[in-house]
Amino acid sequence: MAPPTPRLVVPVDLKKKPWEQTLPLHNRWHPEIPPVADVKVGEMFRIEMVDWTGGVIKDDDSATDVKFIDLSTVHYLSGPIRVLDKQGIPAKPGDLLAVQICNLGPLPGDEWGYTATFDRENGGGFLTDHFPCATKAIWYFEGIYAYSPHIPGVRFPGLTHPGIIGTAPSMELLNIWNEREREVEENGHKSLKLCEVLHSRPLANLPSTKGCHLGRIKQGTAEWEKIAVEAARTIPGRENGGNCDIKNLSRGSKIYLPVFIEGANLSTGDMHFSQGDGEVSFCGAIEMSGFLELKCEIIRGGMKEYLTPMGPTPLHVNPIFEIGPVEPRFSEWLVFEGISVDESGKQHFLDASVAYKRAVLNAIDYLSKFGYSKEQVYLLLSCCPCEGRISCIVDSPNAVATLAIPTAIFDQDIRPKTGKVPVGPRLVRKPDVLRCTYDGNLPTTKNPAASM
Amino acid sequence: MAPPTPRLVVPVDLKKKPWEQTLPLHNRWHPEIPPVADVKVGEMFRIEMVDWTGGVIKDDDSATDVKFIDLSTVHYLSGPIRVLDKQGIPAKPGDLLAVQICNLGPLPGDEWGYTATFDRENGGGFLTDHFPCATKAIWYFEGIYAYSPHIPGVRFPGLTHPGIIGTAPSMELLNIWNEREREVEENGHKSLKLCEVLHSRPLANLPSTKGCHLGRIKQGTAEWEKIAVEAARTIPGRENGGNCDIKNLSRGSKIYLPVFIEGANLSTGDMHFSQGDGEVSFCGAIEMSGFLELKCEIIRGGMKEYLTPMGPTPLHVNPIFEIGPVEPRFSEWLVFEGISVDESGKQHFLDASVAYKRAVLNAIDYLSKFGYSKEQVYLLLSCCPCEGRISCIVDSPNAVATLAIPTAIFDQDIRPKTGKVPVGPRLVRKPDVLRCTYDGNLPTTKNPAASM
Amino acid sequence: MAPPTPRLVVPVDLKKKPWEQTLPLHNRWHPEIPPVADVKVGEMFRIEMVDWTGGVIKDDDSATDVKFIDLSTVHYLSGPIRVLDKQGIPAKPGDLLAVQICNLGPLPGDEWGYTATFDRENGGGFLTDHFPCATKAIWYFEGIYAYSPHIPGVRFPGLTHPGIIGTAPSMELLNIWNEREREVEENGHKSLKLCEVLHSRPLANLPSTKGCHLGRIKQGTAEWEKIAVEAARTIPGRENGGNCDIKNLSRGSKIYLPVFIEGANLSTGDMHFSQGDGEVSFCGAIEMSGFLELKCEIIRGGMKEYLTPMGPTPLHVNPIFEIGPVEPRFSEWLVFEGISVDESGKQHFLDASVAYKRAVLNAIDYLSKFGYSKEQVYLLLSCCPCEGRISCIVDSPNAVATLAIPTAIFDQDIRPKTGKVPVGPRLVRKPDVLRCTYDGNLPTTKNPAASM
Amino acid sequence: MAPPTPRLVVPVDLKKKPWEQTLPLHNRWHPEIPPVADVKVGEMFRIEMVDWTGGVIKDDDSATDVKFIDLSTVHYLSGPIRVLDKQGIPAKPGDLLAVQICNLGPLPGDEWGYTATFDRENGGGFLTDHFPCATKAIWYFEGIYAYSPHIPGVRFPGLTHPGIIGTAPSMELLNIWNEREREVEENGHKSLKLCEVLHSRPLANLPSTKGCHLGRIKQGTAEWEKIAVEAARTIPGRENGGNCDIKNLSRGSKIYLPVFIEGANLSTGDMHFSQGDGEVSFCGAIEMSGFLELKCEIIRGGMKEYLTPMGPTPLHVNPIFEIGPVEPRFSEWLVFEGISVDESGKQHFLDASVAYKRAVLNAIDYLSKFGYSKEQVYLLLSCCPCEGRISCIVDSPNAVATLAIPTAIFDQDIRPKTGKVPVGPRLVRKPDVLRCTYDGNLPTTKNPAASM
Repeated sequence: MAPPTPRLVVPVDLKKKPWEQTLPLHNRWHPEIPPVADVKVGEMFRIEMVDWTGGVIKDDDSATDVKFIDLSTVHYLSGPIRVLDKQGIPAKPGDLLAVQICNLGPLPGDEWGYTATFDRENGGGFLTDHFPCATKAIWYFEGIYAYSPHIPGVRFPGLTHPGIIGTAPSMELLNIWNEREREVEENGHKSLKLCEVLHSRPLANLPSTKGCHLGRIKQGTAEWEKIAVEAARTIPGRENGGNCDIKNLSRGSKIYLPVFIEGANLSTGDMHFSQGDGEVSFCGAIEMSGFLELKCEIIRGGMKEYLTPMGPTPLHVNPIFEIGPVEPRFSEWLVFEGISVDESGKQHFLDASVAYKRAVLNAIDYLSKFGYSKEQVYLLLSCCPCEGRISCIVDSPNAVATLAIPTAIFDQDIRPKTGKVPVGPRLVRKPDVLRCTYDGNLPTTKNPAASM
Repeated sequence: MAPPTPRLVVPVDLKKKPWEQTLPLHNRWHPEIPPVADVKVGEMFRIEMVDWTGGVIKDDDSATDVKFIDLSTVHYLSGPIRVLDKQGIPAKPGDLLAVQICNLGPLPGDEWGYTATFDRENGGGFLTDHFPCATKAIWYFEGIYAYSPHIPGVRFPGLTHPGIIGTAPSMELLNIWNEREREVEENGHKSLKLCEVLHSRPLANLPSTKGCHLGRIKQGTAEWEKIAVEAARTIPGRENGGNCDIKNLSRGSKIYLPVFIEGANLSTGDMHFSQGDGEVSFCGAIEMSGFLELKCEIIRGGMKEYLTPMGPTPLHVNPIFEIGPVEPRFSEWLVFEGISVDESGKQHFLDASVAYKRAVLNAIDYLSKFGYSKEQVYLLLSCCPCEGRISCIVDSPNAVATLAIPTAIFDQDIRPKTGKVPVGPRLVRKPDVLRCTYDGNLPTTKNPAASM
Repeated sequence: MAPPTPRLVVPVDLKKKPWEQTLPLHNRWHPEIPPVADVKVGEMFRIEMVDWTGGVIKDDDSATDVKFIDLSTVHYLSGPIRVLDKQGIPAKPGDLLAVQICNLGPLPGDEWGYTATFDRENGGGFLTDHFPCATKAIWYFEGIYAYSPHIPGVRFPGLTHPGIIGTAPSMELLNIWNEREREVEENGHKSLKLCEVLHSRPLANLPSTKGCHLGRIKQGTAEWEKIAVEAARTIPGRENGGNCDIKNLSRGSKIYLPVFIEGANLSTGDMHFSQGDGEVSFCGAIEMSGFLELKCEIIRGGMKEYLTPMGPTPLHVNPIFEIGPVEPRFSEWLVFEGISVDESGKQHFLDASVAYKRAVLNAIDYLSKFGYSKEQVYLLLSCCPCEGRISCIVDSPNAVATLAIPTAIFDQDIRPKTGKVPVGPRLVRKPDVLRCTYDGNLPTTKNPAASM
Repeated sequence: MAPPTPRLVVPVDLKKKPWEQTLPLHNRWHPEIPPVADVKVGEMFRIEMVDWTGGVIKDDDSATDVKFIDLSTVHYLSGPIRVLDKQGIPAKPGDLLAVQICNLGPLPGDEWGYTATFDRENGGGFLTDHFPCATKAIWYFEGIYAYSPHIPGVRFPGLTHPGIIGTAPSMELLNIWNEREREVEENGHKSLKLCEVLHSRPLANLPSTKGCHLGRIKQGTAEWEKIAVEAARTIPGRENGGNCDIKNLSRGSKIYLPVFIEGANLSTGDMHFSQGDGEVSFCGAIEMSGFLELKCEIIRGGMKEYLTPMGPTPLHVNPIFEIGPVEPRFSEWLVFEGISVDESGKQHFLDASVAYKRAVLNAIDYLSKFGYSKEQVYLLLSCCPCEGRISCIVDSPNAVATLAIPTAIFDQDIRPKTGKVPVGPRLVRKPDVLRCTYDGNLPTTKNPAASM
């Protein structure tokens, strides 16, 4: 009996561009992007992936690459993979595709990553009204640990996972996506939330031919032109899984994805060495290239058996996830709370997004008292294994959200103490994150009562 | 040296009404509610508490008490407690009050609790548009475990905590609360979210003399009349802590509360044997009477030292929490996801509340396939130790929220399997929750694509 | 339906002597010690217990009580409890008695405990050849936490458990015990291990009328005289469970005890607020009075069904234990190793006891570099939640045993660092444990190569 | 800044014999085995290792290779590695070498392992008197999980670790080893324990020229002849670390090794995908080839600073270990107990080895009721992540040892239940382990009271 070494079905060469790969990558969701490989249920296979930007962000001394990134090109995905049962019959619409993550990690020889936040005029982030500048921190990996020269004094084990894993949508589902997202893009301003400050961020990310890559379909062909105007962007998570950014989908996890087209057409990418709940800085995990070793099962008819559509059509479903027993254990947490009152003092109604924004802001201000810059903490909370919880969603008018940070990731005791915050040489945290200027003219949200 | 037996500073007698207690309870926040006891820093003291309704909900065979409850009377709190330092000098505005929870539990002889959801016309809950009826489940405790005759097949250890713990607001802070909450009550309809379905729920809970209890201040006195019209309701969590409903605040946790008035005036109540993140059914924890054994420290000037106001005044702060090493450990979780697309298929913009609603609905529909009624699951997810996470809040336009449920609380394997959901005698889950009719005429949100 | 408040079946009054209690205690195992109460399967009941010495060890400033203790009187047990099924039929020989620990803790008003090591001439301990003096440390409880004025700088949550829980032996089993223990007492010197230094400790603890208490059987009666010469001491764990001292038997655990006589006759005592694996100082847990809330099931014929005798008779069995999900979580451990080479340098053959002795000695010497006296560490390692493991038992000639200590129980970082052990005021750890002189003339084992 | 890709300092080619490798392997401890590579503190480096037998045990259908293995050749180690500080100055005797395990795993393309027990005449195991036959089970890896065609119904995540990691002994230390082990080999029969049944196992493993490999020192040279008669076998763990078999030394762990000769001369091997405490079947982990990614620090003078010799010389020390936060989490355990009474019913005095033997025997008999053969369980308990604890070592005359098994590794509920062990098709566990006949004539220990 042969040992079950995973078969490499999608190799990547980091010296090549995403579209130059032997199995060229794609950055859109569409049923007609052709599969690049077949796998059978029960076999272990390996997929390699570039980082989500396809190598645009460099391990260098500047955040300029972040500031001027062309976001129309993200995320570069490996696949699609067509999944067959033991008899060679493909997965069918209505099946569930169970994908177990047997192993994963950075690509050997490329053991580094980055966390960044975009310029407010070019992507922004959850707190872009407070932090409008592009910033970047580089992380290096020591096996399971990550550390950053730009955020000294912290080190943590990664809960490594793919940010994106999903099946291809059917045309029907794709049309639903495009329609509902166009609606919010066109009419959304009426219901703006998040303190009305996020209008510089795109409300949705509608299909764009600019930056579009469709795998084996060559740019400029008629097929490409047709698909490129329809194909969904990969930014949001949707019914097919996609960019869920669920930080716990690490080794041993299992993902139950609905199948919408024959073969399932599984794609994956956007590997994260580590991410905090919320991924608040947007380019917010420790972004890296990497590999996945997967094993699939097909649950025939599983969508009807296990999923209940929640919406106007049977396609309005969501994947289910199973989380395994292998996660870093932390025993002590410091927890910051936010309620749905915004920075101006305005009351929002049970708004968990506003509450979470405030919890994150509270944590940033608190940790900055221990010698970090606020930008350092913003990036840190994006990528360290912190827990963002909806603690209470029923006590009108306040939602309560919490952000729990494991104290063991710091090399100092960050808990409040009787007496003052200790001062001394430990508090000098140099160097800082890499940062650019903000050249736009949107107002920055200031904290009127803060002195720091 | 005397052993550190906690001193009982607030006893309650469950045979008496909240206002008949030796140290009468209160159900409003106001700086002028007089303290009922003093404690010194470093001393262990014990507070006893009635359940949040003061005994209105009974261990009986009907949900009628839930349906017709007078919500103007909740929550009954024990206290206020004035906190002094070792020299007898009270906590001062600007201090931080660090409260360690040394021990807690149900009141001996009263080891039971309830989970309920209110009628849509009288309080509702997170999913009130789907579940408009009042329902109730009784839970019995076996030491650390809870089980319910109304939700057979589950049993779990409690992560017991106080739903409410807070300091008294100053008049300035109270005015801020009343003003901003009145604003949302009066003008809030413009920005309604949560699928526009929650308009039957109160947008805020403004001060009301009806149902008001102010501890030692007698009803009908001039003082009572003055305070009752100003005193804030206890429903939402706010800057003083209050109804945070953070499920992890159990044994060994520490709460750093801002001090707004001399003495701090600590009040607490709303004991929960267990609660899930979100407390979705509103009366959603396992509600019980109980006791707390606490120890306080005063961090002089700690508000300035450790908290950063986030809003127009120095009072716009939030407490900080520290979570200890003693929690039930679970090693396997089943995770349901929601994105910010509502039941009608409408796209919302990065709305974590909508996303969490969908995650909870997905979980309810899924678990109902294993032999539970949807009402059973709704109550169960309110009170079992499930984790509600904001997984991603930056991938426009979808927020991704997840609900992680520990699989070990069920007596059957609830994971998806190749093949169909197992059928058989286990699936008969009788009896069901206690329930009432819904007599209103608001439309129920139906799941158009669901067959069950 | 009445809430399941536990029924108090064995109360104790700490102001009375063990033999003066309403339901007098016993300190021997014998089938004819009459039950003091009946319980039915499925009912929750409460047992109160004195500390194992019945109040001899005091919360005072001297270890004299430890030095001169009369060990013929320990351990005082509550019970026996007769267990009946729902029809009132008692448990029968051959059944398994499943006892779930629903709750436990110190007795209210008596929240303190002690850890001690006996004089070498009067009981000794695992390291008595190194530490021949009687010593004592007092611990106070703050809810889940314990701290000691005699061992400053440590604080830890208790994994509280009964040291002793067991069923009554049949006469046949009792005879087996007495015979095999007499054999080792009389002939054991030939096979002495543990560095040949333990000969001052009793090899076994044979029946003695001195100090014997038999519950309701009055001293001086014929019955008492007969039973007292046969009844087994409670020191060792045996086939009936008894003094297992398994530190993880805390809330939520379940113990499957073999039933040897009709009714099972369950007895329990020796409550430990916390204990380390090995309980090395002998009086080594944090010993206290306390209560248990239990629930029993009878598995009819379960001995045959689930247990396999390992020895000459069907009575040579051992209980099985199930450990629940509620334990303090620690995420970082410092581990000390021992191999089966003794302090004189002599090689022993796969001797896990010698290896563990060396691991504990290594840990004591190491921690004493951080400002503790060796006696403080010896007592600490006896009672804190450390893990004593048989890491390898097959690599001839060395057994490898390890002692893993959670680093979070210390208020300083105890890990080795580049550079020297930090010096400074933290290292002054006063006061020390209470201690007596050793007045015997057995040689103390010295560490010839140690300078400290 | 270059990403910290580990430098490969010891490659192995699995198609070659251990002594044919570019950097030939060694299987003895001796100060004069020359280093094969240098590393500097702070650099990440990678070592590859063959399995401990150098490829003798095959992934085939027979245990014959196990039965007739030549144990004089084990364990094949990679190294020695000379460790230098940043200035290029080697580690010196008296230093501590801190080795962090950054990453580890099976060698890509060789993702399988084996667990075996030797024939009683050729190595045996902890229970060789009960199980005298050579047996073998093959394990395949699916990322973090292992499963075996020979032990169906179990699957578990690996806590992967090196069985052996150590520094080279000085001649002085080597002499101490050889002397004390010769003493037990020659005179040991007088103090035989473990039920006097292990006399067919070698008492020690003294130096032997047979099977000896010394890295770059060619067999047959004068140097080889000199060293081969002195060099210590690698079987037991000793002062230099070596074959500690501590199952928790996985990713993120740190090992503090004493330095006895210039350069430290670090060697490692015997990779285990997973091991249970005790490694009871001797070839008892899931043995595999593999790699380690390590990073070293030198703590100058650290032996004196942190270690205390326990024995006649300053060399009588043991390493210290630090265990990191990344381990599989299990929340429920079934625990088997053993006391120091042997299978014949004889009482031993506080003998943890005898107690552990009985705990393991109890577990084997118990689990065999659920459809496994006893040989399957014996191998399983050797290699699954079970915990072997010395629960109590002071309650004369019984030591209490426990074996805790995580229930989640089984695909059935293995807990005792009211009623009988469930019967049915699940109980057919075929195929069984591979096994050979036992051709010796030593008596097998039988369980006189067992019917199975």
